[in-house]
Amino acid sequence: MFVSNAALEREKTHIADFAPEVAWVTRAGSSDLAEPIAIRPTSETVMYPSYKKWVQSHRDLPIKLNQWCNVVRWEFKHPTPFLRTREFLWQEGHTAFANAEEAEQEVFQILDLYAAIYTDLLAIPVVKGRKSEKEKFAGGDFTTTVEAYVPCNGRGIQGATSHHLGQNFSKMFDISFEDPVTGGKAYAWQNSWGLSTRTIGAVVMIHGDDSGLVLPPRVAAIQAIILPVGITRKELIDTADRLAKSLVNADIRAEADLRENYSPGWKFNHWELKGVPIRLEVGPKDLAANQVTAVLRYNGKKLAIKQEELVPEIKRLLEVIHAEMYNKVLAARDAHMQTCYDFEKFKQLLDEKFILLSPFCGDMACEDEIKKASTREDADAGAAQMGAKTLCIPLEQPKEKLPDQCLFPSCKNKPKFFALFGRSY
Amino acid sequence: MFVSNAALEREKTHIADFAPEVAWVTRAGSSDLAEPIAIRPTSETVMYPSYKKWVQSHRDLPIKLNQWCNVVRWEFKHPTPFLRTREFLWQEGHTAFANAEEAEQEVFQILDLYAAIYTDLLAIPVVKGRKSEKEKFAGGDFTTTVEAYVPCNGRGIQGATSHHLGQNFSKMFDISFEDPVTGGKAYAWQNSWGLSTRTIGAVVMIHGDDSGLVLPPRVAAIQAIILPVGITRKELIDTADRLAKSLVNADIRAEADLRENYSPGWKFNHWELKGVPIRLEVGPKDLAANQVTAVLRYNGKKLAIKQEELVPEIKRLLEVIHAEMYNKVLAARDAHMQTCYDFEKFKQLLDEKFILLSPFCGDMACEDEIKKASTREDADAGAAQMGAKTLCIPLEQPKEKLPDQCLFPSCKNKPKFFALFGRSY
Repeated sequence: MFVSNAALEREKTHIADFAPEVAWVTRAGSSDLAEPIAIRPTSETVMYPSYKKWVQSHRDLPIKLNQWCNVVRWEFKHPTPFLRTREFLWQEGHTAFANAEEAEQEVFQILDLYAAIYTDLLAIPVVKGRKSEKEKFAGGDFTTTVEAYVPCNGRGIQGATSHHLGQNFSKMFDISFEDPVTGGKAYAWQNSWGLSTRTIGAVVMIHGDDSGLVLPPRVAAIQAIILPVGITRKELIDTADRLAKSLVNADIRAEADLRENYSPGWKFNHWELKGVPIRLEVGPKDLAANQVTAVLRYNGKKLAIKQEELVPEIKRLLEVIHAEMYNKVLAARDAHMQTCYDFEKFKQLLDEKFILLSPFCGDMACEDEIKKASTREDADAGAAQMGAKTLCIPLEQPKEKLPDQCLFPSCKNKPKFFALFGRSY
Repeated sequence: MFVSNAALEREKTHIADFAPEVAWVTRAGSSDLAEPIAIRPTSETVMYPSYKKWVQSHRDLPIKLNQWCNVVRWEFKHPTPFLRTREFLWQEGHTAFANAEEAEQEVFQILDLYAAIYTDLLAIPVVKGRKSEKEKFAGGDFTTTVEAYVPCNGRGIQGATSHHLGQNFSKMFDISFEDPVTGGKAYAWQNSWGLSTRTIGAVVMIHGDDSGLVLPPRVAAIQAIILPVGITRKELIDTADRLAKSLVNADIRAEADLRENYSPGWKFNHWELKGVPIRLEVGPKDLAANQVTAVLRYNGKKLAIKQEELVPEIKRLLEVIHAEMYNKVLAARDAHMQTCYDFEKFKQLLDEKFILLSPFCGDMACEDEIKKASTREDADAGAAQMGAKTLCIPLEQPKEKLPDQCLFPSCKNKPKFFALFGRSY
């Protein structure tokens, strides 16, 4: 988890960006260390001295490594559990290729995988794009990202990033080999990419409601919880137990909560809070009608299911729930995403929880101005007053023609693309 | 990964023992922190404030949690890769029970699991025992351990530990509940237990030889590597490939190394270094005789195997190799483990790479004296001159009757048991 100051400082842009957030160990026991040692904020500078040793020939490439670990970034803008924390857990992939094409291709392959985690597993729509110069990974050539939208507060959230590091790090760390064609010295082309436990925060914020978590069915540890309801009777308990087993046998993650020291009401609340997608109640009336009452967590709807149709019906419902949860978030986002050319309108829509596709020159100074000018100084203290930043430059650009004028009124540069702006985590 | 000073200091014995090894973060970016924060040397004090919140009723018990994480102990006695490192990776289990019996029972269940990892997976014999007062976990009631023996240098190595914490931590962190019988306040009974990446170091040291790793077959990522040997011919390559597939289909972890840009000699060396248990060579003569030549990594023996008998024969060989590797280490250890009552003899045998079962009073001061008196001040600098410590008090005691006299000549206490002494990591 440690990185020496010397290794950390090797790539200048990289250290310049991370330095303010680096935690330093300066003491062990009661002794001061001769040299303070940093806790990794990300592992490029920890791992690449080894890459230098491993890469001797083009035959040693590509190298593709992934690790799950904890990293530390000592920041205190708006600490939020899972979303912005000093220590966070993530996977970080580090790859090195013999040429630029293979490397760049992988950046987008990984980005597609990350997008699929959000859309196909977590039921969260995302916009794929590149980061602006201001927001890109420090020391890399370009950064790609998947960006999600949080309906309840209108903020954007960076879901995962995949960076092309070019030869910046390989030149600094001398990750090189003899070019098999020219015989000259060649430097590796590198990528790094990461997805963190922030995804858990995204699920909580985007799907959750006032009654607690709402888990998307494909990642829910328990997809269906079965509760005997009513005066405790052996028949109710046996039926709940039998139905749970039939679901489990059909590869549905189901459990029966047969505890007798908690009331059905307590259990409803308990499993609701935990976000279990489907609650199945077996009461005396259900028993008589040979049915089960299903209650869907995401919208509270109730429906009766014949016991003999339980397995196929639950399988179908889990798919429906996934699709509807996704569509609900998509609709909320699309209702709050629009192109905007006018900065006054931009600021107003921002306060109305919009994210905005606006013409942008891509300039770092201009992005600073936009952020400053969109900060609400009149507002109460808190996150809502923050300025807008670029979430990304969407890979899929709006159909509208780019105007001649950048979003920021006094900017003299030509806009290069539509960027997606918003308040963010 | 962080723990506040206040939490760390709660259990006095615990902090007293770990304090000299704790790494402190005192700076973030260029600012000094108001309060230095410690990096966990182990997570009791990190996790137990949460246990206090989780335990409200006896119904919340038992709690059984396990985590895989990195911990830091800033020690520099004899840093050795995998065996003694500042940062190491481990699993740590933390459990809490409503009564002492259940808790104590679990300590030994876990110890048996740890022993089985060594004996059944890693082919390393271990001695199960308790730690002495001096060597036990700081803040716990008692510590159990599995201890292995390293033949090449005669040192003992602690393989894994399972601690009974009693109510020491639960009282300090107020992990309590209402006793369902008496109605009074009751404190939880706790255990913690851990196994680290040190096991990798144990495998390297105990089984390895001058040609590199020797991996026990049950944990080898590749159990059999197949190499076409001789002038590269399509038939050799096809046969190697076909045989590899037949092994994989039979759930043997096999690979064919068909790379044409490396010589057979280079490959022999490469896979030997990596410790692959069985190398299978397919040369022109093998092809003609419809056989494969097997070379066993652990003893270098060669044998011919008929191709049609390859699958059952490799399965049998993997079992034989496991048993013989285990027995080889066991024989080396048993030849260097004996009861010893005389301290002069003890010191001499220690230098002859022995570990020794000696009568011991269990007293911390006496153990200090033994360690001091068995340190070889005349020897060259290095690990070999270290004093003996107790590896453990074996659960299975020697058949010999305990004498009246403790090992240490000037000790006036009665011996309580035979302890296993040795130089150690």
